[in-house]
Amino acid sequence: MIILASASASRAAILHHAGLPFEAMPAHIDESAIKLAGAAAGETPGAVAQTLARLKAQRISARCPAALVIGADQILSAGDVWFDKPESTAEAESHLRRLRGQTHTLHTAVCCLRDSQMIWHHLATPTLTMRALSDDFIADYLAAEGDDCLSSVGAYRLEGRGIQLFERIDGDFFAILGLPILPLLGFLRQHGAVG
Amino acid sequence: MIILASASASRAAILHHAGLPFEAMPAHIDESAIKLAGAAAGETPGAVAQTLARLKAQRISARCPAALVIGADQILSAGDVWFDKPESTAEAESHLRRLRGQTHTLHTAVCCLRDSQMIWHHLATPTLTMRALSDDFIADYLAAEGDDCLSSVGAYRLEGRGIQLFERIDGDFFAILGLPILPLLGFLRQHGAVG
Repeated sequence: MIILASASASRAAILHHAGLPFEAMPAHIDESAIKLAGAAAGETPGAVAQTLARLKAQRISARCPAALVIGADQILSAGDVWFDKPESTAEAESHLRRLRGQTHTLHTAVCCLRDSQMIWHHLATPTLTMRALSDDFIADYLAAEGDDCLSSVGAYRLEGRGIQLFERIDGDFFAILGLPILPLLGFLRQHGAVG
Repeated sequence: MIILASASASRAAILHHAGLPFEAMPAHIDESAIKLAGAAAGETPGAVAQTLARLKAQRISARCPAALVIGADQILSAGDVWFDKPESTAEAESHLRRLRGQTHTLHTAVCCLRDSQMIWHHLATPTLTMRALSDDFIADYLAAEGDDCLSSVGAYRLEGRGIQLFERIDGDFFAILGLPILPLLGFLRQHGAVG
């Protein structure tokens, strides 16, 4: 049995489309506190994303020790600034105004646990360069996207209109969407969890 | 007015999701004859894909000279062999048996015409490495995909279960799906065709 320790609709869709049988179980941890502590301790965004992915998976693995539990997390950084998922359209607007015209990194961590032991982990770091968007463009974009823009840490969905924000995208497309499915499938096959 | 000179549901979906207003008009040309002639003349798959994209767009541009017409084509090559879109599940099976365990290239051409003049073109060449799939795996995959496997030149849809066929994917994800949307949007903005 495979459990995705995540409430993310995007991650569930990636696993579902790949034809993988799994159950999704959201794991509630205090992400903000862990991020603040990690940043204060001088940890990299990638290391903190890996910690968060592991803690989510551990929460579920403790309840379902026989299951193979997938944990995942994504942190967006631009220069020294880390961004959280926007909670309102106003916050999404503020994020986009700060991200425009520069390159940011999506530190995307995924790991697998069984019986509370980590048996595999992977970190992908795709980078995206946003165009020098005008205030009007950002306002029109957010009006067209509505609450959809609140579903991702960068306030964009590349599968949708969000592609219009970018001038360059480098790295694994599935990692950008939140789950590096290719290395994950490689591990699951090697582990005998999928055919 | 923007016209997509293509019957491809995948290309139309990419433009639609990006929020672009357009009409789709399939352009019927004898692709096989042009491919055979190009190969016989020693042309590269990329050059022939560009020719096919241009001919499709020209067919529509002659009818709608005021429109901005987008033409696109994709040719799959593995070593010296070019592959056509499979017309049956049996042909898809034969393709997958020949592609397994090796790297192939998707020569993906896109161009824009107005009044029968080419005003922009782009060629993307993503490469994909297929796993050494067993005959049983291929049979199970094709049974699960049904006629969906006939919609792409490589008999796979990366947005779906097709991701399971691969061990490595390099290059523009949208080009793999049939339309390099990022450079296309860049041109359309520069040309004043989108905001």
